[in-house]
Amino acid sequence: MRIGFIGLGNMGLPMASNLVKAGHHLVVFDVVEKLVQALVAQHPTQVSASPNIKSLAQGGDSSSQTNQALDAIITMVPEPQHVRSVYLGDAGVLANLAAACLLIDASTIDPQTAREVAQAAYEKGYSMVDAPVSGGTGGAQAGTLTFMVGGDEAAFEQAKPILQAMGKNIVHCGGNGNGQVAKVANNMLLAISMIGTAEAMSLGVSLGMDPKVLAGVINTSSGRCWSSDVYNPYPGVIDTAPSARGYTGGFGADLMLKDVGLATAAAKSVKQAVPMGALAQQLYQTFSNQGHGGLDFSAIIQMLGKAK
Amino acid sequence: MRIGFIGLGNMGLPMASNLVKAGHHLVVFDVVEKLVQALVAQHPTQVSASPNIKSLAQGGDSSSQTNQALDAIITMVPEPQHVRSVYLGDAGVLANLAAACLLIDASTIDPQTAREVAQAAYEKGYSMVDAPVSGGTGGAQAGTLTFMVGGDEAAFEQAKPILQAMGKNIVHCGGNGNGQVAKVANNMLLAISMIGTAEAMSLGVSLGMDPKVLAGVINTSSGRCWSSDVYNPYPGVIDTAPSARGYTGGFGADLMLKDVGLATAAAKSVKQAVPMGALAQQLYQTFSNQGHGGLDFSAIIQMLGKAK
Amino acid sequence: MRIGFIGLGNMGLPMASNLVKAGHHLVVFDVVEKLVQALVAQHPTQVSASPNIKSLAQGGDSSSQTNQALDAIITMVPEPQHVRSVYLGDAGVLANLAAACLLIDASTIDPQTAREVAQAAYEKGYSMVDAPVSGGTGGAQAGTLTFMVGGDEAAFEQAKPILQAMGKNIVHCGGNGNGQVAKVANNMLLAISMIGTAEAMSLGVSLGMDPKVLAGVINTSSGRCWSSDVYNPYPGVIDTAPSARGYTGGFGADLMLKDVGLATAAAKSVKQAVPMGALAQQLYQTFSNQGHGGLDFSAIIQMLGKAK
Amino acid sequence: MRIGFIGLGNMGLPMASNLVKAGHHLVVFDVVEKLVQALVAQHPTQVSASPNIKSLAQGGDSSSQTNQALDAIITMVPEPQHVRSVYLGDAGVLANLAAACLLIDASTIDPQTAREVAQAAYEKGYSMVDAPVSGGTGGAQAGTLTFMVGGDEAAFEQAKPILQAMGKNIVHCGGNGNGQVAKVANNMLLAISMIGTAEAMSLGVSLGMDPKVLAGVINTSSGRCWSSDVYNPYPGVIDTAPSARGYTGGFGADLMLKDVGLATAAAKSVKQAVPMGALAQQLYQTFSNQGHGGLDFSAIIQMLGKAK
Repeated sequence: MRIGFIGLGNMGLPMASNLVKAGHHLVVFDVVEKLVQALVAQHPTQVSASPNIKSLAQGGDSSSQTNQALDAIITMVPEPQHVRSVYLGDAGVLANLAAACLLIDASTIDPQTAREVAQAAYEKGYSMVDAPVSGGTGGAQAGTLTFMVGGDEAAFEQAKPILQAMGKNIVHCGGNGNGQVAKVANNMLLAISMIGTAEAMSLGVSLGMDPKVLAGVINTSSGRCWSSDVYNPYPGVIDTAPSARGYTGGFGADLMLKDVGLATAAAKSVKQAVPMGALAQQLYQTFSNQGHGGLDFSAIIQMLGKAK
Repeated sequence: MRIGFIGLGNMGLPMASNLVKAGHHLVVFDVVEKLVQALVAQHPTQVSASPNIKSLAQGGDSSSQTNQALDAIITMVPEPQHVRSVYLGDAGVLANLAAACLLIDASTIDPQTAREVAQAAYEKGYSMVDAPVSGGTGGAQAGTLTFMVGGDEAAFEQAKPILQAMGKNIVHCGGNGNGQVAKVANNMLLAISMIGTAEAMSLGVSLGMDPKVLAGVINTSSGRCWSSDVYNPYPGVIDTAPSARGYTGGFGADLMLKDVGLATAAAKSVKQAVPMGALAQQLYQTFSNQGHGGLDFSAIIQMLGKAK
Repeated sequence: MRIGFIGLGNMGLPMASNLVKAGHHLVVFDVVEKLVQALVAQHPTQVSASPNIKSLAQGGDSSSQTNQALDAIITMVPEPQHVRSVYLGDAGVLANLAAACLLIDASTIDPQTAREVAQAAYEKGYSMVDAPVSGGTGGAQAGTLTFMVGGDEAAFEQAKPILQAMGKNIVHCGGNGNGQVAKVANNMLLAISMIGTAEAMSLGVSLGMDPKVLAGVINTSSGRCWSSDVYNPYPGVIDTAPSARGYTGGFGADLMLKDVGLATAAAKSVKQAVPMGALAQQLYQTFSNQGHGGLDFSAIIQMLGKAK
Repeated sequence: MRIGFIGLGNMGLPMASNLVKAGHHLVVFDVVEKLVQALVAQHPTQVSASPNIKSLAQGGDSSSQTNQALDAIITMVPEPQHVRSVYLGDAGVLANLAAACLLIDASTIDPQTAREVAQAAYEKGYSMVDAPVSGGTGGAQAGTLTFMVGGDEAAFEQAKPILQAMGKNIVHCGGNGNGQVAKVANNMLLAISMIGTAEAMSLGVSLGMDPKVLAGVINTSSGRCWSSDVYNPYPGVIDTAPSARGYTGGFGADLMLKDVGLATAAAKSVKQAVPMGALAQQLYQTFSNQGHGGLDFSAIIQMLGKAK
């Protein structure tokens, strides 16, 4: 397939590379030109650069005289306003597509924006899905991401084989925007569970228990959660967790802060009370303000315990 | 074996019945006499009543002229002060035991009291374990409770076969008091996860997702927890959960409130910050104050959502 | 003066009436036509209606053939998007003003939007201030509102005499947007203090103190705050507070919810942690969801205490 | 008068000194002997030491052969268990008093213990008041403390002239224990207001306001509180506040942590929800765990803002 790819950051770059490995041809764009050049240099026969979004949408790239229609465009950008500017407006994707093209936004943004942009796409006759990911940069590199996909059944089925080149778990969450809904709901719960696990583990150890014994009890009891049995924040409990390597790698606290912030804003829009989610957001904001936003999000355990 | 059993409440009564089923002889006491009489009437050959704790500790019961030594005494009472008054003082167990006897306190109390009473027992030469349970009245009746046991290895091994008549999961948590530590740490995390799951499920549904689809995504992602995959608070997701039957049965909100209160008090004693645990306690207190303390603890989902 | 007034809701209507009383001529617009007609009918010689915002900005009204320039335009609308649509766009105020005109937005919105709209006004050569109010409908009717004004010194001095017809306290808070900043910061603190006062009063009374004695101690001690000494939420302490009349009148819980929501969103934008503010928002959301958003915001004391 | 004084710590010592200045004779005891010796050395004619509490209660001191009855005994000790051990038991005050003596406990403890000890005193025929203070070490030295007094009218009137030698504000809060109730209720509200003020000030300044202007607006609006208008945590707003001198002096964060901990424990005992109070406790615990418990409690503003 011939696929446009916009956004070659920490996540986008390895995702694009996996598409290349799967045999697709890519036309790519990023505001940081050297990211584009590096990828083109690595795969000169399969990847070409486009000078801007308008040109990319038209199927054009720097190397060709004639534009060729794209089968799909994938976007992976940081914020809702980037999604808007990429898709909407005179210089955006929607205004410049010439032929049928599946649109896949893999960015993590608010459900409302996702739905507005998808609506605009459908009004112009294009199918679109939101497909935010979980799995971090590790999953992006390994091609083991989970994609939470919002869109109609036909669009989902069309997107699935493309996404499978980048992930192993492709979940249909319902209509447009529901990919984002699933992501923020899941990640808000994750933030809450992680801090809860940090509190429970630290409390138990402070009261005299061995951390591995305590984790063993919790993991076979009603406190069991992904944060306790896969990603335990207490050092020494799980060898493969970031807590075993100084909280490096993994999913950064600042990224978690962003996701919980999306969740509480979405909750406000539908008048849902989320006291635990709101507190998690504030605790991560405090942790980030103390200079630790770059650590894995499980490092928040360090903020709550006694000074060692 | 000949076992003393003190405390025949909602939990104690079915636990005692399971000991009878396993063939043990019981000498029982409760301040509510009719509970005692009912059990004796049901099992006249295996259960006898003792008029008070002193007499029970001496092995005596109403029907016999001579006291026979007890192999073990199990206690299941509501509050730390009850544990103290049962074991300590002139009329208590410790002052009136005549021969070697294993002491098992299955009450849920604070670790500090558990350790003090165990210390008093050891000073008099008696082995003691704290063995709080999880599994609720359902587990007590079915004999499928989990016992979290604190005490030395020898005492644990001695207690294990007795506890197996009442539960299926007997976990050694370390020295005395650690059973209580494991329980409060686990249940604090459970309270947090439950409210977090309630928030995440309600948020996702309010934003347009199908609850079963959302639960499916969470249960295969990083938000997964016992509260989401076994005991989901959103009605209609899990047929066997209390949410499927109007939040009746299960583990009462007021019992959860008690346990989280033990956890935050214990946290204060060791200077551990537990912001999520403290908020969970306050939310359950609010829920209880609104008259819902008798509902299953997952019913707290009703407090946070929009008025229907 | 000849003043345009847009937005004749619960607050706008009495504010406009006070401008009339002060002798000003008004050209008014509201999307609810009957509000406009009622005001015109009441003051036929001083108030005239404009069919839309474009016409109002041009100074026109239904009754005159020729447009007359307005000295000032005051807007009082509910949400940021309304402020944007009133001022910006082809049919908005800025595009249709013909002569120098002072722009006063008295709406309560986020500082960011206030600054963007003011910037647009200045780029077109018009002075603008944001001037959100406190004092509620009572203050609007009595003409005793407080205006928190953001804008340059000259614009503030120009706005002051106009605002004095509607309020008694006109405070210059600094540059554009700072009126909104002062308002959200103050109201977030108010929400926190109110819930804190509710907790402290209820706690003290539950522990055996007379509410008036307790309020007396607090009001002469370090817990003293406006919520305790002017607006005490405990019934019977202050005769003039909403707590003395079933929490009717006053400042609605839903309005407080809106303001705290603006505060936490603004905090997120500048990476300030506001754990207390966020919790206050969630508690007001919960209170509103239980159907009490129309009560005075001090009624939240009812949510936290024991069921009576 | 001849007054016994037990507890010569940071607060007790300057309080005792003020009693000496007022002309009273003191018999003093503290477990730290050098504190006792220093005070005796300073005032050899007015102060004498007692070797233990029993002897002090009997009116005896090291220098005299015969015991003289005490008019009053004042205690100022850290924790409930100290109050119990000073007053109760065979070696305590109550068991060893020979004549009528007014008992004044100025310690800050839980209301429950205060009531139990007062009850024990009354059963032996002695009048007792609880009289916790606010005003800190500065107020203790200057003799400007506030005493919140719980006890019957007669005991209050008897205690008043004695307390006036150490404070300027002597408030009768009702029956025994109510002094403690008033103190914990006030200080919980103070903790909440302080963090709220810290959040509001930091938020406003981050959004572009001048801190003094913002404080000015708040202090004339509904956000006004003691923490904003007397003790503002934002540096540079109030010259006499600890924030103006690096958060030294004042009321230590660890002392505030203790008081809020008493408040939330008391709230649990009467089933009052105190979500804001509980969060304040956790934030102070976190702040203390980060090594800042010795700073003035207004320093918590540093924990929430952006890293500078």
